[in-house]
Amino acid sequence: MNNQMNEQLQEGIMLTDRSKPLTLDKVRISDPFWSDYIRLVREVVVPYQWEALNDRVPEAEPSHAIQNFKIAAGEAEGAFHGMVFQDSDVTKWLEAVSYLLETEPDPALQQVADSVVELIAKAQQPDGYVNTYFTVKEPENRWTNLAECHELYCAGHLIEAAVAYNKATGNETILQVACRFADYIDRVFGREPGKLNGYDGHQEIELALVKLYHATGKDHYLALSRYFIEQRGAKPSFYEQEWEKRGRTVHFPQLDIAHDLPYSQAHLPVQEQEQAVGHAVRVVYMCTAMADLAAETGDEALLQACKKLWDNIVAKRMYITGGIGSMAEGEAFTADYDLPNDTAYAETCASIGLIFFAHRMLQIEPDSRYADVMERALYNTVVSGMARDGKTFFYVNPLEVNPSQLAGNKNTHHVCGQRQGWFGCACCPPNIARLLASLGQYVYTVQKSAIYVHLYVGGAATLEIADTEVQLEQKSAYTWDGEVSFTISTARPIAFALKLRVPDWCGEASWVVNGGEPQQIKGNEIANGYAQINRVWQSGDTVELVFTMPIHRMKSHPLVRENAGKVALQRGPFVYCLEETDNGEQLYQLALPAESELSAVFDPVLLGGLQTITANGQRQVSDGWQGQLYRHNADWQTEAAELRFIPYFAWANRGAGEMTVWVREST
Amino acid sequence: MNNQMNEQLQEGIMLTDRSKPLTLDKVRISDPFWSDYIRLVREVVVPYQWEALNDRVPEAEPSHAIQNFKIAAGEAEGAFHGMVFQDSDVTKWLEAVSYLLETEPDPALQQVADSVVELIAKAQQPDGYVNTYFTVKEPENRWTNLAECHELYCAGHLIEAAVAYNKATGNETILQVACRFADYIDRVFGREPGKLNGYDGHQEIELALVKLYHATGKDHYLALSRYFIEQRGAKPSFYEQEWEKRGRTVHFPQLDIAHDLPYSQAHLPVQEQEQAVGHAVRVVYMCTAMADLAAETGDEALLQACKKLWDNIVAKRMYITGGIGSMAEGEAFTADYDLPNDTAYAETCASIGLIFFAHRMLQIEPDSRYADVMERALYNTVVSGMARDGKTFFYVNPLEVNPSQLAGNKNTHHVCGQRQGWFGCACCPPNIARLLASLGQYVYTVQKSAIYVHLYVGGAATLEIADTEVQLEQKSAYTWDGEVSFTISTARPIAFALKLRVPDWCGEASWVVNGGEPQQIKGNEIANGYAQINRVWQSGDTVELVFTMPIHRMKSHPLVRENAGKVALQRGPFVYCLEETDNGEQLYQLALPAESELSAVFDPVLLGGLQTITANGQRQVSDGWQGQLYRHNADWQTEAAELRFIPYFAWANRGAGEMTVWVREST
Repeated sequence: MNNQMNEQLQEGIMLTDRSKPLTLDKVRISDPFWSDYIRLVREVVVPYQWEALNDRVPEAEPSHAIQNFKIAAGEAEGAFHGMVFQDSDVTKWLEAVSYLLETEPDPALQQVADSVVELIAKAQQPDGYVNTYFTVKEPENRWTNLAECHELYCAGHLIEAAVAYNKATGNETILQVACRFADYIDRVFGREPGKLNGYDGHQEIELALVKLYHATGKDHYLALSRYFIEQRGAKPSFYEQEWEKRGRTVHFPQLDIAHDLPYSQAHLPVQEQEQAVGHAVRVVYMCTAMADLAAETGDEALLQACKKLWDNIVAKRMYITGGIGSMAEGEAFTADYDLPNDTAYAETCASIGLIFFAHRMLQIEPDSRYADVMERALYNTVVSGMARDGKTFFYVNPLEVNPSQLAGNKNTHHVCGQRQGWFGCACCPPNIARLLASLGQYVYTVQKSAIYVHLYVGGAATLEIADTEVQLEQKSAYTWDGEVSFTISTARPIAFALKLRVPDWCGEASWVVNGGEPQQIKGNEIANGYAQINRVWQSGDTVELVFTMPIHRMKSHPLVRENAGKVALQRGPFVYCLEETDNGEQLYQLALPAESELSAVFDPVLLGGLQTITANGQRQVSDGWQGQLYRHNADWQTEAAELRFIPYFAWANRGAGEMTVWVREST
Repeated sequence: MNNQMNEQLQEGIMLTDRSKPLTLDKVRISDPFWSDYIRLVREVVVPYQWEALNDRVPEAEPSHAIQNFKIAAGEAEGAFHGMVFQDSDVTKWLEAVSYLLETEPDPALQQVADSVVELIAKAQQPDGYVNTYFTVKEPENRWTNLAECHELYCAGHLIEAAVAYNKATGNETILQVACRFADYIDRVFGREPGKLNGYDGHQEIELALVKLYHATGKDHYLALSRYFIEQRGAKPSFYEQEWEKRGRTVHFPQLDIAHDLPYSQAHLPVQEQEQAVGHAVRVVYMCTAMADLAAETGDEALLQACKKLWDNIVAKRMYITGGIGSMAEGEAFTADYDLPNDTAYAETCASIGLIFFAHRMLQIEPDSRYADVMERALYNTVVSGMARDGKTFFYVNPLEVNPSQLAGNKNTHHVCGQRQGWFGCACCPPNIARLLASLGQYVYTVQKSAIYVHLYVGGAATLEIADTEVQLEQKSAYTWDGEVSFTISTARPIAFALKLRVPDWCGEASWVVNGGEPQQIKGNEIANGYAQINRVWQSGDTVELVFTMPIHRMKSHPLVRENAGKVALQRGPFVYCLEETDNGEQLYQLALPAESELSAVFDPVLLGGLQTITANGQRQVSDGWQGQLYRHNADWQTEAAELRFIPYFAWANRGAGEMTVWVREST
């Protein structure tokens, strides 16, 4: 272990003490907000995606993903169709199914999934290789274009699915497929002579190999993950070398991936990367693996690199919705504080990856700054990514939408004003499914004799403190009211610290332990953002929490050019927006006076029940311009306008129209 | 002539009465603002461009344009290099030279130009064809890709140059080359069986053929121009047909020109086009020709089509600087009121084309709404297009520049924070040169017994009213002070109306006729934006004009989303901007209070002397954010800031930095 120790370590939490992820059979969700989304994943999303993967959704572009596996397995004839990473749609689906099965048995679903496992196993080549694109279409070109062709990325998703499915069902076949594939990759890649010293264009296998290491206990998977992370950014550039070697051919001519090294975070060794650059999903998948490796190996320098990138993302490159990636071209980060609202990319998958990263950091170092961001991304961008009916999805999550601009200006060609069905490049829907299906993993961590509550998602958890089982029942009216209660059950009295996150948005936090009068939570009871109760707990002990939910006028750092003079509303975990359907056209003509009172009004009918916010606002009036575009004798004319904000996640569920998160503040 | 007559016609101005363009030997410029720019064109731009065309500018990418002609002429060996429209760089240069020679003889320059004429003549093929790309590189593919390959566009520039050079020098060779080429084109194109019923992707030949008609009096050139305009937009699409015919090959795969018909304004017959769409330069070149043809043929419906497009451009799709084209992709118009400042394209050539269009409309219908826009484009975007030393140029003219965004966000990849030398695609520098060298053409028109003064550019003009010569000496301190005087000389007393444009920006206008007290110009002395003095003029008569120049806080139409809550300053013809060098970084943190006094301060040293505007402003302060990106307890903190605005045209002459035209107005 590195001699250099950070503050956290000096406080006694060793990197190698990090908490292990909880299994989903131990954390059951029963929550007024989330249960319905998880039900949608089970009842709508996963079955719909299965149909889509089998090309049985008439209105969607055929996926061909299952058919590709059938062809590779010798069960069908024909050509490969789809993206080079089409396989990952199947394995991400299988991973989501695994979490559903881990939570609750479903023999019919398991039967379908077993058949997919058999198909994947059959598509595996004698040497262990699995990839239908290269098996069917370019068998001679394996590993010749790591920069662009996602072979190791697909391998990573296969491994993640395998670990999850094995854990959920005990299925050994899929774990064997994954191990054989990983062992083969281990023979192909490395610094030893005769091996390829490359690494994937799209990070994913790194975090997957850590999961495989956890599942099997085999060190060489951890070492291989570490190799991929440490080799990244080595000079001379592997991508440029392989490009020369294969005769300078490219798969994605519009992107120049072989030479645009920052796009794939291959411009520098990971420990020297101080800014989040390039493709946003790749950055956060990479950081997730870096955090994993830092924890597993005690590599303090790697942990510091994670923190640098974390800080850069959340302090300079993240939308208020938890979206990341400001630019469509390259689906990428751009520059510090460059957060345009209308041309935003903010891919759903990138926010999911940010949650993975936050989750790993929380396992190492429970600090609410990670959990606050996790919550922000989850309650805003991720849940916005799926319609209330579970059938349509956002890939791109802008903070401002103007339909007339979408029609005419190609700088916004990537933005959809409405959620879409299964896409040609369908990465987001299965990613949402696997995240929501495994949401229980993100609620708690246990570290030594402390239970950390990161998310206030209702349900029942079975946790282990010093070999003793503790049942924690969480009842949550958190999303709209900030109220949560816990009931503890334990076979015998047990001492532990219950550490309860105090959200960054809360006004006053108070608690009641075992009944009585609410007590305001004092500063000395909060450490690293968690209020702690240290006691010997007995069965039947209760803790009731109330976080007051003032409506906040959020402002951006003054270096965020696009939001100068503007505010966004937030109440509880939810960022709000204005929609045309409630507020009329030309939302940019609206202003919210600084002194306007903001009222939270629960609308039980609206999209299943939403807290709305109303306020007296002003609307600029367009009268009297008589065909002039510029005038020098024009006053701003305004009229009173009642503004109605709804949570951002709920936008675009009532037809097409304008939307904006940031609104001008008038004085 | 069409039976349907518009208001203007009913007032007695027949379309066919339109004023003829003035020749440059009749309008000599001597102006404190413009003379220096024209001198730069003569002494710096044209010689520099000659060097560039001959690949003798070490720091510039080789143009190869003259070398291409030498190869086509059989004087050199080698391959074609450059864009498919590389030839036009040579002919636009020759056109600019023609205007310089027409203004003032220069035997050395004429000798160089004569050699170019000889070279072009030698490159002409036996059938009359001139185009070095197709002659050298794809001789078998003439006229197979009109949508993309600019053959007729290059022909148009050759014809324009030929007419100008013949007029300036009497050179017959170049006119013969142009006529032989045009005659050949006339044999190739048309609706008759066996002819190609196509038209150019980039309009230009249409307006050039009208000039050739004027120069030669040959009707078939006018008819050919009319054919090209009238055939445009015919169904089925010629571009799609030729694409099929040539085996679906394309030259510019990133644009899909064969199918994106609005890009080339080929989506509808021109008379049905109600919005300016697609490539902005093409639109205004097309409109220029449409106005020419309406005037020449008396086609009232065509004139109405011009007016519709004019109104759409200036009332809904033009930047306050006279820039047009909101989007880099396709160098194109986008949607009504979509005028982003930072991603603006606003190509210099498009504003030049807008001036051409305005000029033609003024010849038909002298109305100051055309001249006001002509002035706006000229004094802002066009003159901004060239550095104060005449050596560097802007192709793209944004209204807001943030260097950190330019570095990181590819939505602004087309924007340069500094003017550039000769470009790979070098259309703008020679276009600026030919406009400034012929500026005299734009100052006056004569219509029946009226002299219209559209621009207040000092100099001496010799005009003809009813076969009598009238000399008009204009002395102008217009740009900074709004003061102009005229002295009339004439061999005998002559009655005419002197019609003086009252600029849209002027506060009070007053005049003095033959000395005495200034009289405010009354409303009944102004018609269609021109104050008129109807009298019998005698030699020595004088008119002195004073237009007061209040500093205007300009506002955009409330439908311009990007400028909501913002103002721009204008004084006289100049739009102003803030630059980082005067105002520090983060210009978007500055606000101009509504009540701030605005002071015009002449700085005699700054870039050769500029009126600046100063005001008390506010700067948002960034202190106290401690690494947070969003805060809910943050007040806007401001400090006093002295704002200093300079004319937009003068930006980026003092190093790189931020710039903005629109600034938030605080109350």
